[in-house]
Amino acid sequence: MCYKIWYYKYNMEVVSIILYIPTPNSAVENMIRRFGKAVPMIVQCFILVLSLKFISVNCLAHPLDPLSPAEINKTRDIVQGSYLGAIPNITYHFVDAEEPDKKRVLEWLSSNSKEDKPIIPRQAKVVVRAKGETHELVVDLTKKSIVSDKIYTGHGYPPFTFNELFQASKLPLTYPIFKSSIAKRGLNLSEVSCVPFTLGWYGEKITSRALKVSCFYRGGSVNVWARPIEGITVLVDVDSMQITMYNDRYIAPLPKAEGTDFQSSSSNSNSRPKTSSSASCNVTDIIGFTIKGNEVKWANWVFHVGFNARAGMIISTASIFDAKRQKYRSVLYRGHVSETFVPYMDPTEEWYFRTFMDAGEFGFGRAADTLQPRVDCPSNAVYMDGYMAGPNGEVQQVPRAICIFERNSGNVAWRHMEINNPQKLVRNGEPEITLVVRMVATVGNYDYVLDWEFLRSGSIKVGVDLTGIMEMKAVPYTEKSEIKERVFGTLVAENTIANYHDHHITYYLDLDIDDNSNSFINAKLQRARATGFGTPRKSYWTVVREIAKREAEGRIRLGLEPAELLIVNPNKRTKLGNEVGYRLISAQPITSLLSDDDYPQRRASYTKYQLWVTSYNRSERWAGGFYADRSRGDDGLAVWSQRNREIENTDIVLWHTIGIHHVPYQEDFAAMPAIHGGFELRPANFFESSPLLE
Amino acid sequence: MCYKIWYYKYNMEVVSIILYIPTPNSAVENMIRRFGKAVPMIVQCFILVLSLKFISVNCLAHPLDPLSPAEINKTRDIVQGSYLGAIPNITYHFVDAEEPDKKRVLEWLSSNSKEDKPIIPRQAKVVVRAKGETHELVVDLTKKSIVSDKIYTGHGYPPFTFNELFQASKLPLTYPIFKSSIAKRGLNLSEVSCVPFTLGWYGEKITSRALKVSCFYRGGSVNVWARPIEGITVLVDVDSMQITMYNDRYIAPLPKAEGTDFQSSSSNSNSRPKTSSSASCNVTDIIGFTIKGNEVKWANWVFHVGFNARAGMIISTASIFDAKRQKYRSVLYRGHVSETFVPYMDPTEEWYFRTFMDAGEFGFGRAADTLQPRVDCPSNAVYMDGYMAGPNGEVQQVPRAICIFERNSGNVAWRHMEINNPQKLVRNGEPEITLVVRMVATVGNYDYVLDWEFLRSGSIKVGVDLTGIMEMKAVPYTEKSEIKERVFGTLVAENTIANYHDHHITYYLDLDIDDNSNSFINAKLQRARATGFGTPRKSYWTVVREIAKREAEGRIRLGLEPAELLIVNPNKRTKLGNEVGYRLISAQPITSLLSDDDYPQRRASYTKYQLWVTSYNRSERWAGGFYADRSRGDDGLAVWSQRNREIENTDIVLWHTIGIHHVPYQEDFAAMPAIHGGFELRPANFFESSPLLE
Repeated sequence: MCYKIWYYKYNMEVVSIILYIPTPNSAVENMIRRFGKAVPMIVQCFILVLSLKFISVNCLAHPLDPLSPAEINKTRDIVQGSYLGAIPNITYHFVDAEEPDKKRVLEWLSSNSKEDKPIIPRQAKVVVRAKGETHELVVDLTKKSIVSDKIYTGHGYPPFTFNELFQASKLPLTYPIFKSSIAKRGLNLSEVSCVPFTLGWYGEKITSRALKVSCFYRGGSVNVWARPIEGITVLVDVDSMQITMYNDRYIAPLPKAEGTDFQSSSSNSNSRPKTSSSASCNVTDIIGFTIKGNEVKWANWVFHVGFNARAGMIISTASIFDAKRQKYRSVLYRGHVSETFVPYMDPTEEWYFRTFMDAGEFGFGRAADTLQPRVDCPSNAVYMDGYMAGPNGEVQQVPRAICIFERNSGNVAWRHMEINNPQKLVRNGEPEITLVVRMVATVGNYDYVLDWEFLRSGSIKVGVDLTGIMEMKAVPYTEKSEIKERVFGTLVAENTIANYHDHHITYYLDLDIDDNSNSFINAKLQRARATGFGTPRKSYWTVVREIAKREAEGRIRLGLEPAELLIVNPNKRTKLGNEVGYRLISAQPITSLLSDDDYPQRRASYTKYQLWVTSYNRSERWAGGFYADRSRGDDGLAVWSQRNREIENTDIVLWHTIGIHHVPYQEDFAAMPAIHGGFELRPANFFESSPLLE
Repeated sequence: MCYKIWYYKYNMEVVSIILYIPTPNSAVENMIRRFGKAVPMIVQCFILVLSLKFISVNCLAHPLDPLSPAEINKTRDIVQGSYLGAIPNITYHFVDAEEPDKKRVLEWLSSNSKEDKPIIPRQAKVVVRAKGETHELVVDLTKKSIVSDKIYTGHGYPPFTFNELFQASKLPLTYPIFKSSIAKRGLNLSEVSCVPFTLGWYGEKITSRALKVSCFYRGGSVNVWARPIEGITVLVDVDSMQITMYNDRYIAPLPKAEGTDFQSSSSNSNSRPKTSSSASCNVTDIIGFTIKGNEVKWANWVFHVGFNARAGMIISTASIFDAKRQKYRSVLYRGHVSETFVPYMDPTEEWYFRTFMDAGEFGFGRAADTLQPRVDCPSNAVYMDGYMAGPNGEVQQVPRAICIFERNSGNVAWRHMEINNPQKLVRNGEPEITLVVRMVATVGNYDYVLDWEFLRSGSIKVGVDLTGIMEMKAVPYTEKSEIKERVFGTLVAENTIANYHDHHITYYLDLDIDDNSNSFINAKLQRARATGFGTPRKSYWTVVREIAKREAEGRIRLGLEPAELLIVNPNKRTKLGNEVGYRLISAQPITSLLSDDDYPQRRASYTKYQLWVTSYNRSERWAGGFYADRSRGDDGLAVWSQRNREIENTDIVLWHTIGIHHVPYQEDFAAMPAIHGGFELRPANFFESSPLLE
């Protein structure tokens, strides 16, 4: 879930309004009163807004560049200038660069002279809601006009705006019955914070957008999540912004504030690292990298770093220099988080619906947190800001949304010592220096640290660290032996159960291994009987390569049998005649344990396989479907794959889901030590020999 | 396989001989001639030998301290002073501290005053061969006498001495038929290096120890392994040191030297990291650690670092400070590599027998390589030397066998940003600073980088990096399409197949979670049907804990179903009533694909499960059996587990096997980029809450 971006949002609101209205109106005054700390930011925001032109001047245009702040505002102006501008309360739910035609992008990349480069129109994809309808717009920024305007009538809704989430979260505080519920519990209303939750779909007829709101007690702790006010369900109709259902089912004790704070700790404790001293000498630019616009060059790699509200960080057109062939060769056209599925395992009234699709319902870009130098990224990190459109279409900024840094983890890239040369002992090797591109998405209680790590060996490692705060449930128990009924998690503090849940993080991986005609090969390791060799050996294993011809053969459950998962270019071979390829090494595959007929599983049916291979389609990027809120599973990866398209020797996309079944332990309280996961894309006969020895 | 220690060995030989004989004899002169570079080392070795007393003075005695250099030499003197000293050519195959009684070690650790500490006799376990017999001795260093002398009559032999390996490797070079084989191939004998291989057991009757020798051509490359002289089998009877079988079956082209060198590269290539510059500012002592004798204190951890010829690095009595309880609590009594199994998947005459048990047949300590500052370990690393006994029982040293350093990898230990507190945004977290203890075992062609990493969160991460050179086979083919017959690997260079093989690395993990009465729990995640909750939710998963009562229930195949693997102390609970425990998170479990009736599989039958739990037994530490050379699988983990002892609420040992099925790719040539694997031991209700927030 995502509301933290209210903060930046409000800054930008203030700015934008000030830009339009010389004297702040009462709404702005309220905001400033509410967000006292935000006021000084106004100045900063001015600077940011002013500095945008300067930035765009410096940028090299790349057809996959995200919309610049100027382009986002320009997009809004074009929409507001159209008939839609006349409609009151039109809201912007998604604004991103319209995905350009891949063929033309590849032409643009391959053409050396500026003249030869095809002109790729800058267009924006915009989703607005007006008069209760969802409009899908394509806005041409050159023509300064809306070139396409469709009304979406299918299932599901676009993400909520921060305004909607914010207003919904405030409704209970003025709702008489809720006030009495709080009074009945002997609590102080001024210490109550409410949080809006998406509610998925459970077979009901849906006529309008809705949220459920849960409330928490602050009093004495900044860890809002640690003190849930249990037993209350509030249903909000978002379009009318009314509470349409209220249920105060039972009262549970309020967990105590003591020990829940994750703020104080940083000061005390001697054994904690002194980050300030470390920062002065942490990681150094050993190889060095350059950033021009959104393009990053480091060692033998060149790639493009983008950002949008839904995926957050996006890696595009990553190529690696082949010293033997003296040219860059393509590896990855596009890679990013496609969807996340976070179902909780508590079927009771207040919890059963908590089956979040964070990227689709809220957005990892929306949830992008400003990175803390020397904590989230080492002292040698370079930062990029992120930009997206707010509810009214105007640009908002996430300062330091992405960091890029060289890592010397102390690992060995390769090494060997050889004794079998008389007269000399040979010892050689080198430390592993890598380049990390990182963002953090704080989706409500959870923090996802998302890494793309590039290695000189040709590997790309994708990492996900899970940290932050768990979702917790108030219970009457202070000791495990008191628990007689069924609970759905671990007692992690007095009166506090951290509920079991999953994190399924699905990556979109449009690999173009040395050009974009690729095949997927499931190379299985199979035992063979050793006969006819005249030796006493009885068995060995060998490799049986199965080429996936159609999408049905591209649905893979990992871990059941040993196999090499290869993406090859069947049209390109090494000098030795091996198909050039990469392989996927997954450290943390996961499949959903929910039953296929369960509603959340129908919406996230793609989580039944950890690996899918599909035929490239410009419009297929979001595994859970584009309209994830209240979706019914009739769009998305599982549906596209049903077409069973040919995937041999063509442009294919891999979809890989990693994550954890999270059984909480007391150590995960009050804030979780990071749990690391990820996967590696490793060259497999892509090079003639190890790039580390070039 | 292990012969690189010849190098140090020779240095020590030279020293020892010089200590005994004022003027070097011709043998020594030969050695000095052969190992030209070794000569200057003589001086260094003197210094080392002289410095030993100084070291031992500084050491705090710990009952699990490895034998000091002085103790190793003393052990030899005692044995040589006995009737065994009169026997000519007695050879020392294993010398280590006799494992003391665990109960007394725990008493020693728990008693605070020096007076209360029980006296634990310093004893050495020695395996010598005399008159073709294997003697198991226990030498008491206080009593200065042999307190036990048994002749081993079972299957299998102790590891070869370096002398035996060295002499065997030289035999072909003076063997007329081999000379003609080389001449027949038009090769220059002076460019030939031969390497001894253990040959396992294939059902034959064994009357004496043997080695098979394979030969390689250097000419122009330091990468001996890249140019195998294929088609020749040489069998050596080690006790008589004679070639007893010779077979020149066929001639294959000699792979070319070009592109095989892993030495030259380090000079050129601009994109390679400048390690010298990085070294100046790489990782810094942010928390700081102290080493007294073999005991390391860092952050909330204290542990003991040992070393022996078989396991190499050994971590003992690791305890973590609990800030809430204000005391150290035990986690790991003893952890180290127990055995490795490296079977190759080529059933032909020259290859079928290559099914190595590196730790048992050669020794990871024997194979320990001197670490390269700024390559193998970062610039802030502190080093420890390793000591063991040579063939004649005298101490030999591995300088810089172990390094210890603080790591700041740039990862986040934990973090969170919270927006739901009006008027303030709360953002906190810290970088992940860890302590790494590392050694490298270069077992012939392969290099294993072996890490124990300690985290302030309470986690211990065990890492294994595989790098070095692959074993390769010469073939007639220069292009894949030429291959018509069956091959058993990947064409990685012209005329060069890198054969398929496995690496199974088995860890001995004597966990003592908060004292040494523990139980193992396989906590399975199982789907439940959601009925009777009055909600439309249809399913969820819950945790079903299965306590392993006997060893049969302690044999686990990982990855088949999601489960939490817990080691708990059923007698200790948190304030909340949860059993204190740790859990095993494996990133790279592996099982052998060989058939159960195959000879190498019978010897390494423990590789059919990735996890075993056994009852603690002082003598059970080597998964493949103590006498691994030519073993028949009648000793070792699988046999012990057959006793099916009780393992509930008692002192238990975990055995975890990680590794890879290695399908080589061209990138693994000429030297492999490291492939990383490992596992994590993570606290699971061991603490009341996250130690990072203490």
